[in-house]
Amino acid sequence: MREPTARPVIVDCDPGHDDALALLLAAGDPRLRLLGVTTVAGNQTLEKTTRNALRILALAGITGVPVAAGCDRPLLGDLTVAEDIHGLSGLDGPDLDVPVPEVSGVHAVELTRRLITGSAEPVTLIATGPLTNVALLLRGHPEVTSQVRRIVFMGGSTERGNTTPYGEFNIVTDPEAADIVLRSGLPITMIGLNVTHRALATTEIIAEFHAMGTRLGGICAELMTYFASTYHRVFGFEHPPVHDPVAVARVIDPSIVRTVAAPVAVELSGALTRGATVVDLHRRTARSPNADVAVDLDVDAFWRLLMTAVRNADGASGRPSPR
Amino acid sequence: MREPTARPVIVDCDPGHDDALALLLAAGDPRLRLLGVTTVAGNQTLEKTTRNALRILALAGITGVPVAAGCDRPLLGDLTVAEDIHGLSGLDGPDLDVPVPEVSGVHAVELTRRLITGSAEPVTLIATGPLTNVALLLRGHPEVTSQVRRIVFMGGSTERGNTTPYGEFNIVTDPEAADIVLRSGLPITMIGLNVTHRALATTEIIAEFHAMGTRLGGICAELMTYFASTYHRVFGFEHPPVHDPVAVARVIDPSIVRTVAAPVAVELSGALTRGATVVDLHRRTARSPNADVAVDLDVDAFWRLLMTAVRNADGASGRPSPR
Amino acid sequence: MREPTARPVIVDCDPGHDDALALLLAAGDPRLRLLGVTTVAGNQTLEKTTRNALRILALAGITGVPVAAGCDRPLLGDLTVAEDIHGLSGLDGPDLDVPVPEVSGVHAVELTRRLITGSAEPVTLIATGPLTNVALLLRGHPEVTSQVRRIVFMGGSTERGNTTPYGEFNIVTDPEAADIVLRSGLPITMIGLNVTHRALATTEIIAEFHAMGTRLGGICAELMTYFASTYHRVFGFEHPPVHDPVAVARVIDPSIVRTVAAPVAVELSGALTRGATVVDLHRRTARSPNADVAVDLDVDAFWRLLMTAVRNADGASGRPSPR
Amino acid sequence: MREPTARPVIVDCDPGHDDALALLLAAGDPRLRLLGVTTVAGNQTLEKTTRNALRILALAGITGVPVAAGCDRPLLGDLTVAEDIHGLSGLDGPDLDVPVPEVSGVHAVELTRRLITGSAEPVTLIATGPLTNVALLLRGHPEVTSQVRRIVFMGGSTERGNTTPYGEFNIVTDPEAADIVLRSGLPITMIGLNVTHRALATTEIIAEFHAMGTRLGGICAELMTYFASTYHRVFGFEHPPVHDPVAVARVIDPSIVRTVAAPVAVELSGALTRGATVVDLHRRTARSPNADVAVDLDVDAFWRLLMTAVRNADGASGRPSPR
Repeated sequence: MREPTARPVIVDCDPGHDDALALLLAAGDPRLRLLGVTTVAGNQTLEKTTRNALRILALAGITGVPVAAGCDRPLLGDLTVAEDIHGLSGLDGPDLDVPVPEVSGVHAVELTRRLITGSAEPVTLIATGPLTNVALLLRGHPEVTSQVRRIVFMGGSTERGNTTPYGEFNIVTDPEAADIVLRSGLPITMIGLNVTHRALATTEIIAEFHAMGTRLGGICAELMTYFASTYHRVFGFEHPPVHDPVAVARVIDPSIVRTVAAPVAVELSGALTRGATVVDLHRRTARSPNADVAVDLDVDAFWRLLMTAVRNADGASGRPSPR
Repeated sequence: MREPTARPVIVDCDPGHDDALALLLAAGDPRLRLLGVTTVAGNQTLEKTTRNALRILALAGITGVPVAAGCDRPLLGDLTVAEDIHGLSGLDGPDLDVPVPEVSGVHAVELTRRLITGSAEPVTLIATGPLTNVALLLRGHPEVTSQVRRIVFMGGSTERGNTTPYGEFNIVTDPEAADIVLRSGLPITMIGLNVTHRALATTEIIAEFHAMGTRLGGICAELMTYFASTYHRVFGFEHPPVHDPVAVARVIDPSIVRTVAAPVAVELSGALTRGATVVDLHRRTARSPNADVAVDLDVDAFWRLLMTAVRNADGASGRPSPR
Repeated sequence: MREPTARPVIVDCDPGHDDALALLLAAGDPRLRLLGVTTVAGNQTLEKTTRNALRILALAGITGVPVAAGCDRPLLGDLTVAEDIHGLSGLDGPDLDVPVPEVSGVHAVELTRRLITGSAEPVTLIATGPLTNVALLLRGHPEVTSQVRRIVFMGGSTERGNTTPYGEFNIVTDPEAADIVLRSGLPITMIGLNVTHRALATTEIIAEFHAMGTRLGGICAELMTYFASTYHRVFGFEHPPVHDPVAVARVIDPSIVRTVAAPVAVELSGALTRGATVVDLHRRTARSPNADVAVDLDVDAFWRLLMTAVRNADGASGRPSPR
Repeated sequence: MREPTARPVIVDCDPGHDDALALLLAAGDPRLRLLGVTTVAGNQTLEKTTRNALRILALAGITGVPVAAGCDRPLLGDLTVAEDIHGLSGLDGPDLDVPVPEVSGVHAVELTRRLITGSAEPVTLIATGPLTNVALLLRGHPEVTSQVRRIVFMGGSTERGNTTPYGEFNIVTDPEAADIVLRSGLPITMIGLNVTHRALATTEIIAEFHAMGTRLGGICAELMTYFASTYHRVFGFEHPPVHDPVAVARVIDPSIVRTVAAPVAVELSGALTRGATVVDLHRRTARSPNADVAVDLDVDAFWRLLMTAVRNADGASGRPSPR
């Protein structure tokens, strides 16, 4: 049951194992109203991330949420997908065989524009992939930005990166899009690796997914098991970090993610650091704060929120969408 | 009278004194069919370049061509207009008091998309301002690119620039947009300063505009007189170069502008050279040709073409559009 | 008393509060033989850092160690000193009034060359300031590099920086010099902020300096008290990190600082990240390890080493140099 | 016979076909006093350019001029020689078999320092290769700069480059060194491709070398014949440009090369334009003039000067040095 005061959100994503959990959280928590899902190329090609978004929604029985595919590459340059982390399908691990509905005929940017325009109240955009679609919306439809309540994105870091020593995958994939978003003047929340690396799908967490005893719980467990194997192989991590649902959690319950206002800029020109999010925590530069930057995570509260939502989403399977 | 085989074109511009001549040439030459005019921020703000485009079309009696405003700033960063060259209005000099029609309600990118989609044959895009609108079209509507015959843009240089030692104004204003266009894989023609600096509005040319004895001829003369004064003051040029109509002339009659196929890339990261078009004429790099680059201009033929078109446009004043 | 097997070292520094402790450690530990001290512009101007080096050596009664001034600015660009951290003198806080001897007439690079050439065994260079002198040595006197046992420098970070979000002061001051050193092919140890930020001069440490009851102990206490005040004001740190002696400690007793071999490169071209040390801990790039990078510090062992050396140096005051 | 007022010069070079002519001009014109020759890696490796300098001096019978080898690579990065232009030896074409004397035991920078210090009047440095040695002198021995009358270098361009579209070989090889020189505050003259591309060794010029009927004339003819073949193959030039002697000619007779004072900076960070000399001829930036930039060449006077000097040098063969 949506709460009457549920906050309208659009999730722009590139599933992706952690995007899948982000979708389940956004669809399953009663404090959010998921107006639509848009996809972007990132963890895998646009075709695959779109198909993955449709599959996750179908598996969770969410049927009334429109899905639209967006940009198939970053603003500049070529796409490099994260196949080493997310596998050939972008969602390797479980058997995800499910009939998927048709994707919307309109472009992600156009769907977003329409959903924002049609919403009675300002909409929160949650972006868990490269920010290409969001940047195109801002440049192509500046008239709707007054109806954007806030942009919350998973990306960047105040510390080290993952794709490069100082660059996180989503931002490295489309630094110019991130620059457009961060300079937009809109309220921005950045959920970076410095906090998402604490949201670890430990053995206990995976066991808890299994213990749900449902198809969705089993799929989540298998997704995390696969994710754990690639994170261990590539980065030597003991447990994999589930980045994207942290952004959704922040919108649901701000107390879960502590933020500080800080100047954030994207390095666009470095030979070794292109795509680094340069967060001036100590105000060593003259720039003004332009984002609320996540600096701490209530790990237990986060997982309680996520588990509850997966249970909710699961309960909704096969029934009409909760909208 | 349009020729039955007239080539459909859309002009994307930021008038601008030389853009004004480009519009008159595109509207006045029977070998082109001007499907629409779109505007972009560049020489002046979007509001002013849009108003200027409308005024020039109205003064020339061109009434059936839709005009749409596009991006009000480059993809990245802030807009810096060329007020030192084009004045406070963007079209300083003559009295341009004329009732102007409404601008189209749709965005330039959307109008372009519709005009391309609605055209029976592939459309040539002629861009005489920063390439922001064109870049957004390519990224947001890749499905229409198969119906784009060619993009011909005025911008860049094989030699020195104007805004910076190696950077030309249109490209320096939006280097990322130029990069998107030049990497698009579409047929591209680049009309750079190396040829447009030969298209000089000499004293004789200005006298020839005056000698037309019409309002439009007089306006062209006054535009060029003003342009001459700013080019002399800022660059020490004896006569001002009319860059933009050279791009239109190339579409009308390719023999007027000689080109060579060459690799062209945009410098995006230089501290001093950002926005330079790096044209590898001697194939010193491994890059493949991606553009036909203008290297020579038949100056006399160019001016004959332009003068004839202004006379044509002038004759059409007050009468229905020639479409 | 020097040990017969004491390792010959040259300290290149820009005192600086923590450089002062580094000098005392290098002069006071019997496992090192301090062949010479060279100075460079950094924390303050060359004139001031040279005078400070001379003052510290004089206060500690170290009289036989030659001191030479080197480069008064980085390879490229202008010098920006760290007056906000080290004060107007570069060593603000205590009264350091002491007669200082003459500085050597030769340039730091020439003194270093001579000391290396004259040494019976390979020399370890310990650099605690910008790497300008070391880079000039490598480029101007490549013939001596075979006699350089290792270069151990304090600088850079595997995590965040201090002068800029990802840039540490010594490397940001002369990124090209650091690049030359890191590409030299010599054995390199990098002691970055990621470990030096654990070497904190706590209230207990300062009290321990005071408790020595000697002039040198008192000066160390006052230096750290001043350092604490600026680190608190500029960075909000509770206790100030004493970066430079960690590099010396690593040479004395490698077990105090754990390192890993990793590829390290300097960002030379970023608009926001110039001077960042890009340490590829997860081998995400194709580069090979070129440095042993400090990743952990035995804090207690470090302070025991430093305290003992200060006591040793203090005991030597007024007596002939220990060489 | 040297004129009593002959100007003392040091030539720093990387022969190289055109460097060879520059050496002959510097040694053969009575208005210059060639104090020494230093070599640098550039057109070929340091070993080869040094041997080539020694061979040219020996062939011209110049025996009293000290020669010292300098830097074997640029300040940053690796050396890329111009073997496609100058051949495997760096001076391919003629038979240059001649006994060569020993090179000086000191480094080029040290020899330069000594020659400047020992000169009664300020010395003009003429650099015709990458500026590595000159940069090291400026950074390592700032005390001698007051005795440097002027630095005249062949390098850069106000227009297009040769190694890259906007980069000339000498500057692209060591952009940081050029930056150090151009920011030094010393009087600088830049002789760029924009003028040296007019100093063409035409068929008539080569015939004139042959017609001298001397060994040196024949060697010059053969050098230019080889140079013509590579310039034709690589750049499609009809005749090869002899860049380096233009710098020497400017010192001998300023009326031969017209210059304008202008701000010149080196692009250090561009992905495509690194090493471009950015010459702000129209004062579009706020930078102040820091160099006299060659903009025109008296071609006939240049060749008369060069031919006369080659004849002079030739006449001196086998006899004691003209110093």
